[in-house]
Amino acid sequence: MELPEAAEMLSRTPDVLDALLTGLPPQWLHHNDGPGTWSAYDIVGHLLHGDGTNWLPRARMILDRGAEAPFEPFDREAMLSEEHADVSVLLARFRTARRASLGELSAMDIEPDDMERRGLHPDLGEVTLGQLLATWVAHDLTHLGQIGEVLARRYREDVGPWRQYMPALDRTAEAE
Amino acid sequence: MELPEAAEMLSRTPDVLDALLTGLPPQWLHHNDGPGTWSAYDIVGHLLHGDGTNWLPRARMILDRGAEAPFEPFDREAMLSEEHADVSVLLARFRTARRASLGELSAMDIEPDDMERRGLHPDLGEVTLGQLLATWVAHDLTHLGQIGEVLARRYREDVGPWRQYMPALDRTAEAE
Repeated sequence: MELPEAAEMLSRTPDVLDALLTGLPPQWLHHNDGPGTWSAYDIVGHLLHGDGTNWLPRARMILDRGAEAPFEPFDREAMLSEEHADVSVLLARFRTARRASLGELSAMDIEPDDMERRGLHPDLGEVTLGQLLATWVAHDLTHLGQIGEVLARRYREDVGPWRQYMPALDRTAEAE
Repeated sequence: MELPEAAEMLSRTPDVLDALLTGLPPQWLHHNDGPGTWSAYDIVGHLLHGDGTNWLPRARMILDRGAEAPFEPFDREAMLSEEHADVSVLLARFRTARRASLGELSAMDIEPDDMERRGLHPDLGEVTLGQLLATWVAHDLTHLGQIGEVLARRYREDVGPWRQYMPALDRTAEAE
């Protein structure tokens, strides 16, 4: 994992989500797989929440304090208890938050050697800065995948016999 | 499934893929999960191929000939034997193909009643026009999900212990 290509990938996510979700009607945006599962809208809220409270704060903690104290636990479902804004508002907030995160990341002047610096995850134990930043990228991309799939499942029944060719139609989008 | 919202979703895919993939370096674009699996680049080729030979031709066949003869089988891996173009060229071809498909779809003047008209799938047997069109949409979206996930898997090892929280990192992108 190299930081410039990771940051470049992270910078794409707001545009990708805009292209997929801006102006999409509520029956798509809020479609989920039943109680306890996430809609596309919920997943964007989760990504927004992560930029504010998870990735950058943890990177800062590794650089400032190392593994002397564990990270704050990340509330993966915080977005479910927030008031619903229009998706265009939510996407604009995410764009702003991501831009701020990447600005701050760049200002940290992280060197390749820093990637091995350690922090303490409350459940996983010792992790490195490099692992944290790689996870940030992979987390964006797997949630993008999850958004594509939960949208697809709106047509789970409509596809008729083709369903057997599309295993993603029989998954569910839960907390990851 | 209603045709206008299905067509609107289909019209988004070129923009989503552009935002995610244009200018992405080859180590991302061509990353796959090993022999017989698909990279993000391969999946775009598969979508392009589908617009040319699968969805619209089959819809036309249902409207023109009903279930009197089976559809041509769709070669899901045709893109693997084609020469590699730059991803920007591939994405531009997909944009053009999708615009042509949607123009033709609109010109078909499909009415809600037509959704029940039947065709003959070479393996699945009788299918309806509505099922075909719903599958087209779901197929775009599940492959978008597959692209997000195969890109994420480039960091499968780099994420370290977080891997256990991300089951998508241990899937593989195969023909669907």
